[in-house]
Amino acid sequence: MKSFLNSINTPKELRLLKQDELPQLAKELRAFIINIVATKQGHLGASLGVVELTIALHYVFNTPIDQLIWDVGHQAYGHKILTGRKDIFDSNRQLGGISGFPKRSESAYDTFGVGHASTSISAALGMAIASQLKGENKHHIAVIGDASIASGMAFEGLNHAGVTDANLLVILNDNAIGIDPSVGALKMYLTNVKKGTQKQDNIFEALNFDYSGPIDGHDIDAVITELKRLKTIKGPKFLHVITTKGKGLKQAEEDQVKYHAPGKFDATTGELIAKSCSGQQPPKYQDVFGHTIVKLAENNKNIVGITPAMPTGSSLKYMMDKMPNRAFDVGIAEQHAVTLAAGMATQGLIPFCNIYSTFLQRAYDQIIHDVALQKLPVIFCLDRAGLVGEDGATHHGVFDLSYLRCIPNLIVFAPRNEVELRNMMYTAQLGLEQPIAIRYPRGRGVTMDWKQPFSKIEIGKGKQLKKGHKLAILSIGNMAQNVTNAIDLCEAKEAIAHYDMRFVKPLDEDLLHRIFKLHKTILTIEDASIIGGFGSAILEFAAANHYNNTIKVLGIPDAFIEHGSVYELQKSVGLDAESLKNDLKLLL
Amino acid sequence: MKSFLNSINTPKELRLLKQDELPQLAKELRAFIINIVATKQGHLGASLGVVELTIALHYVFNTPIDQLIWDVGHQAYGHKILTGRKDIFDSNRQLGGISGFPKRSESAYDTFGVGHASTSISAALGMAIASQLKGENKHHIAVIGDASIASGMAFEGLNHAGVTDANLLVILNDNAIGIDPSVGALKMYLTNVKKGTQKQDNIFEALNFDYSGPIDGHDIDAVITELKRLKTIKGPKFLHVITTKGKGLKQAEEDQVKYHAPGKFDATTGELIAKSCSGQQPPKYQDVFGHTIVKLAENNKNIVGITPAMPTGSSLKYMMDKMPNRAFDVGIAEQHAVTLAAGMATQGLIPFCNIYSTFLQRAYDQIIHDVALQKLPVIFCLDRAGLVGEDGATHHGVFDLSYLRCIPNLIVFAPRNEVELRNMMYTAQLGLEQPIAIRYPRGRGVTMDWKQPFSKIEIGKGKQLKKGHKLAILSIGNMAQNVTNAIDLCEAKEAIAHYDMRFVKPLDEDLLHRIFKLHKTILTIEDASIIGGFGSAILEFAAANHYNNTIKVLGIPDAFIEHGSVYELQKSVGLDAESLKNDLKLLL
Repeated sequence: MKSFLNSINTPKELRLLKQDELPQLAKELRAFIINIVATKQGHLGASLGVVELTIALHYVFNTPIDQLIWDVGHQAYGHKILTGRKDIFDSNRQLGGISGFPKRSESAYDTFGVGHASTSISAALGMAIASQLKGENKHHIAVIGDASIASGMAFEGLNHAGVTDANLLVILNDNAIGIDPSVGALKMYLTNVKKGTQKQDNIFEALNFDYSGPIDGHDIDAVITELKRLKTIKGPKFLHVITTKGKGLKQAEEDQVKYHAPGKFDATTGELIAKSCSGQQPPKYQDVFGHTIVKLAENNKNIVGITPAMPTGSSLKYMMDKMPNRAFDVGIAEQHAVTLAAGMATQGLIPFCNIYSTFLQRAYDQIIHDVALQKLPVIFCLDRAGLVGEDGATHHGVFDLSYLRCIPNLIVFAPRNEVELRNMMYTAQLGLEQPIAIRYPRGRGVTMDWKQPFSKIEIGKGKQLKKGHKLAILSIGNMAQNVTNAIDLCEAKEAIAHYDMRFVKPLDEDLLHRIFKLHKTILTIEDASIIGGFGSAILEFAAANHYNNTIKVLGIPDAFIEHGSVYELQKSVGLDAESLKNDLKLLL
Repeated sequence: MKSFLNSINTPKELRLLKQDELPQLAKELRAFIINIVATKQGHLGASLGVVELTIALHYVFNTPIDQLIWDVGHQAYGHKILTGRKDIFDSNRQLGGISGFPKRSESAYDTFGVGHASTSISAALGMAIASQLKGENKHHIAVIGDASIASGMAFEGLNHAGVTDANLLVILNDNAIGIDPSVGALKMYLTNVKKGTQKQDNIFEALNFDYSGPIDGHDIDAVITELKRLKTIKGPKFLHVITTKGKGLKQAEEDQVKYHAPGKFDATTGELIAKSCSGQQPPKYQDVFGHTIVKLAENNKNIVGITPAMPTGSSLKYMMDKMPNRAFDVGIAEQHAVTLAAGMATQGLIPFCNIYSTFLQRAYDQIIHDVALQKLPVIFCLDRAGLVGEDGATHHGVFDLSYLRCIPNLIVFAPRNEVELRNMMYTAQLGLEQPIAIRYPRGRGVTMDWKQPFSKIEIGKGKQLKKGHKLAILSIGNMAQNVTNAIDLCEAKEAIAHYDMRFVKPLDEDLLHRIFKLHKTILTIEDASIIGGFGSAILEFAAANHYNNTIKVLGIPDAFIEHGSVYELQKSVGLDAESLKNDLKLLL
């Protein structure tokens, strides 16, 4: 049988197909995605859900002149494959390969880089207004999921767009799920619309959009018909499309959370391929968080847990299952999550607010204005801090130490292993009188025997891990392990002292005075931006105390780091053990 | 005639009044506010608009057990006066006096500190959920304006609250204006509701709130009746109240923008009191921005202007009046404002996005993820950077250098005077290939003759302002003037060199090498957080280049700075000329 997909290098060729050939193309595209993701891994369910919509959009609209923005970008694999990246699609998310998200530098069809949720309406509106001002007759289309549209930023975009006459089409890809199932009043509203039980109120019409739908997003003819009609209507338009996440792969439809990004699986049966395990492994940090908060909450009734749309990714799910009235998934709403926690803290609750480091950027003002200024003891657990690997530049959690360190009243801590994470969670819920941010990395830790009895950590106290008479290494968080490995590779081991400073704020000044007096040369290391980060804190300490020791600062350089494995990326910025060893050699 | 107001020290006494005595109390309260603000200055219109609502809330609800949160807080003067602060109300916004905003440390009736918009629903929901978990039977009330509720964060709060059974009452204080008139589709919707022309859709019912209203917020009996009814209803409730900003003072009702915070005025006639002017004054920085963008936009058709709800405060109003299709007030929507600008920049427009430094915290992720990561040449103009004075801790723009400096691809510039601001605006619109943040202070500049011909500024180049053989002072932005004044106070003037570094990023490394070689001792000064700020950048430069000069860093210490005049606050942190002079003496 003839392959339509093979003949398509750009949407130009797609538009040469007859409409009745498109269902066959959809089949091929779906199979192509499944086959590659099965072995190369990546985000599966979202792209399978929009195969027909993707084809229809490029079929009806004149991309890339007409401008298409995929919100978040998890669902854009079909788009990438149809827009010239079919042959390199197997390099997806790998070092040097294409990005897992739309990216302007990669293709003219990627009109706006995405990764974080809910940006598409604002960006598309900006483009649409620009077209108006330039007298261009273009279409601007934002495709946004039902989880993303519930975020405040998306509402701000709708609120502005509704009073413009910009040529904007917002397509709601409603599959009732983000990474985890959608939540909130808007989701309930959308469910009622789909069931036909929402009688009168149309939120989008109330916001002055020309609303149509809901239509079946897998009925390619219906989608094309509606897109063609909408193409003739001026001003802000809203199309409500119903899709099934994981469409076309039974297991992916049935377990949408697991098949969001399933890892390797059998492309024919859809079954997940168990990772080959050479014996037991240390736990993921997220699971240490998830199990520990349950344990602590069993003994402390004031503890509550909050996640903005990441119950699975943060492992707060464990608490949500065990104590559903004390653990809250608030949806993609980081701003709300933080101030909700602040409100709870005023009443004596002890909120653990778990947000990925990169997403906490969304709630920066709330940390300053609602939490730290009022000195409310909210416990922030920042998962995915540091380099996160294959998600790349949009998702690395490397700015947190810089943007948190300047906030008065805030404690900033990074555990070097699972036991430290557990003990700091334990310590924080005993009753801090100020907020704390605990930042820890994506993936597995380093300790098998991590379920040890809780012990209290003294706030602001670092720890010497290794004695040495010459050079002192000051590490923060998980960089301790790389340092230990690097020292092991060195010949002059006994010359090197190693301190885990633990707290980026407050600094352990007593320990620092001892270090600065003992060691002429000091090396700091962190998996965060060297501008304004932990090393910078050490420089500030040295200047304030008139030390003139030689200080070398290692960390993430002043550039956006691309995607690749965590190890590859660490190597690329000189934070792996081998690079460190070379630095140590030079310093000794 | 008996004064009811004099007899009220707490809401307890208020509740002893008969309901028919409350209109008289409202009259007295309004007069009290007008009399004090007329001489002591502050926010007038918002509080006048909610006099009846304030009285009704404290009359019906059992504050402070029942918890009342005023969004933003501009409208809380009546609340402060009725809750024990009548006798010290004339210290409002002054150094050592009460805060212009609700503040937890000031009163048990101030349940949540506010200042930035749109936080009240999240905070009140957090409290309401806490009450539920603790089995307490309390009421939780958020009073939020129609401008604030259009912000994304408020939507996130509504979206969550709608699916809880928390005992939350959201009161929409709808006066159709924030500081400037409200904008957006939601405002249009609310207008239609008020006119009775909104037929079917009720957004708040669609979000699962028990909606009632609109009612006349100046009819105290109507408000009390409705509040009493709502008190008996469980779960999330929404009351739509119509008020008039500035109610009771003719001029304040008629010119609501000017009388938001009118400065001194005649309490009887309402007329503004012209400031006594000893000759001509330098312009406000905001006006330099406002006039300059108009001038530049007349010659460059790609320039557009964006403000999130601050057309008057930013002076973008001048452009909005002259070029209404190229200047956009997007409402209290900083996140949207930034990504809208990014979308525009992809199409070759040159967006000037004007946001107060403190409010840019709301769009931190968007600067990183949507602008800098894509290297889009958006021009951020950060007004109110540094210490802002009487608005206090919630409004100082002192974290910007720290949180911006770590962002790759971003230029960070601070003009030392009006001419530098103009020239950098000119330079930026000539065609930068990356984004820039230009931060400048509140209030007036230092130059009379500021309308000079434009001249281009070389990116990353600092400037020597004064030669000197010993100590070098490196200043950034408006601190240059304080340094100049301090040097004038010194005897050993000729020993002191002064450099305006201009760029916090990229640093002028050539100049720095010369400085570090010439001067053993270096003093840095900035009106921003010393943690991670400009001084920290100089320390990083020194460490990276193995200099061991003595470096002293001056700036805002690691604490939230309270309210007072800018001069008083500068003095309190040692940034005024006199304190600087003493520092210089010690260093020489």
